[in-house]
Amino acid sequence: MKPFCFSIDKIIPSTEASLHPMDIGLIRGYGIFDFFRTSNYTPLFLSDYLDRFVRSAEKTHLYLPYSKEELAQIIHDLIQRNDLEFGGIRMVLTGGVSANHFSPTQGKLFIFCEDLDFPSPAKYESGVKLLAVEHIRAIADIKTTNYAFPVWHSAIWKKEGAEDVLYHLNGTISESSRSNIFVIKDNKIATPDKHILHGITRKRVLELAPATEVREISLEEVLDADEVFMTSTTKKILPITQIEGHKIGNGKPGPITENLLKEFLEMEKSIIQSVKKL
Amino acid sequence: MKPFCFSIDKIIPSTEASLHPMDIGLIRGYGIFDFFRTSNYTPLFLSDYLDRFVRSAEKTHLYLPYSKEELAQIIHDLIQRNDLEFGGIRMVLTGGVSANHFSPTQGKLFIFCEDLDFPSPAKYESGVKLLAVEHIRAIADIKTTNYAFPVWHSAIWKKEGAEDVLYHLNGTISESSRSNIFVIKDNKIATPDKHILHGITRKRVLELAPATEVREISLEEVLDADEVFMTSTTKKILPITQIEGHKIGNGKPGPITENLLKEFLEMEKSIIQSVKKL
Repeated sequence: MKPFCFSIDKIIPSTEASLHPMDIGLIRGYGIFDFFRTSNYTPLFLSDYLDRFVRSAEKTHLYLPYSKEELAQIIHDLIQRNDLEFGGIRMVLTGGVSANHFSPTQGKLFIFCEDLDFPSPAKYESGVKLLAVEHIRAIADIKTTNYAFPVWHSAIWKKEGAEDVLYHLNGTISESSRSNIFVIKDNKIATPDKHILHGITRKRVLELAPATEVREISLEEVLDADEVFMTSTTKKILPITQIEGHKIGNGKPGPITENLLKEFLEMEKSIIQSVKKL
Repeated sequence: MKPFCFSIDKIIPSTEASLHPMDIGLIRGYGIFDFFRTSNYTPLFLSDYLDRFVRSAEKTHLYLPYSKEELAQIIHDLIQRNDLEFGGIRMVLTGGVSANHFSPTQGKLFIFCEDLDFPSPAKYESGVKLLAVEHIRAIADIKTTNYAFPVWHSAIWKKEGAEDVLYHLNGTISESSRSNIFVIKDNKIATPDKHILHGITRKRVLELAPATEVREISLEEVLDADEVFMTSTTKKILPITQIEGHKIGNGKPGPITENLLKEFLEMEKSIIQSVKKL
């Protein structure tokens, strides 16, 4: 946690931020958030993240007291105050303290800056393992704070040496706990269409590989794929080489995944370059 | 919210309670709670609720800094301070402020006293309507604060004049959003066995009707039942007479449901009487 945060209506020391525990953000797990990162002081793909945050607030009937432009200004100020050259930024909007302790009311907005925790270079070189778990996220297309299941389950996946989980139900996959999933077979890329959060890194991959099929994908298809990778803000494009005890392809990161990661990193670099020139 | 609450390690004015917003209780919806009520200053079935709270903490790897006996003493003090003749008591244990913003660590304990909101007498006389919703609760047997889905969905059920929802998946029912479900056909009572929270009122009904079958129940069976009811701390035993547009039985509360409610209220009365005599 960096020294300064935005709390309700102003920038204050992060340690002084406080929420009433009867807020349904806590007692009902009813809140939304979003999370992005800065690279060279530039908040990457900020417009996409702010659009999603505004959409999440609308869909959950939560009042967001700032416009996209005002949020961008607050974030700009926070980056300055925290000297956030490379870091994460977390926006959270709570459900509020509700008379019946259930129905959404006017909540509170917080924005915190954080250190970033990227996967190690070794994970990009060897790929990672996922556990396959029967689960489906409710209202997965809204970025709620509802992560009770994966936080609870993470004790199991850590014990099994896995990076994360792959959710599937009735034979169809959806996503990982905080990442989207892509599969490649015979040079064709595909990614699930339902019960997923529309990731911003996923959106970038769809721009880099516009022929990607967005459709229902079976767990069987994943196990039979040549390459599998996951995308997220901090993971970028991370190869998956094992699911449970099963090897994906030859058990090594594949060329299409590696090429997409290269292209994604170049995209990131060119954004930072163009900002610098301004 | 009543004037006094227990916060971390002492009783303080409820308005002064505060939680850091970076607690994973908020940012990951990772926390547990329990909720019970007082009748004539007596916390009903307290031992069962405390057992469940202690179990929820264990299952979620959260450190609960007080024993069952110490919690009972704190609750006793709170009832006195708040003059809580009839009211609700909510215990919440958060996941804590975590270094990686995900893994559980040492959290904070809060206990609040509240006014109670019972269903109206008219609802017991006519029964209530539920919407049937395809959903299954993750780790339903642990009383987590994860209610993002029903809070979000409640806007729909209120519009449809429903009291709550009935969760079902692949044709099998589990529970309502905050209540257990019982069905009656040909004088036989049954209740689901899987993907449910083990309610304390459910436990009382199983004691009052020990022949109740605890087993898998299909949605079809519910629609075809003679009587259906739901149980919870505040609903006690509430008849369900409609699911979506479909009438249950003759569309009126049935005799077995009414008799169980009568017996439950007598049980409650006799507990209060026996406490008074002490």
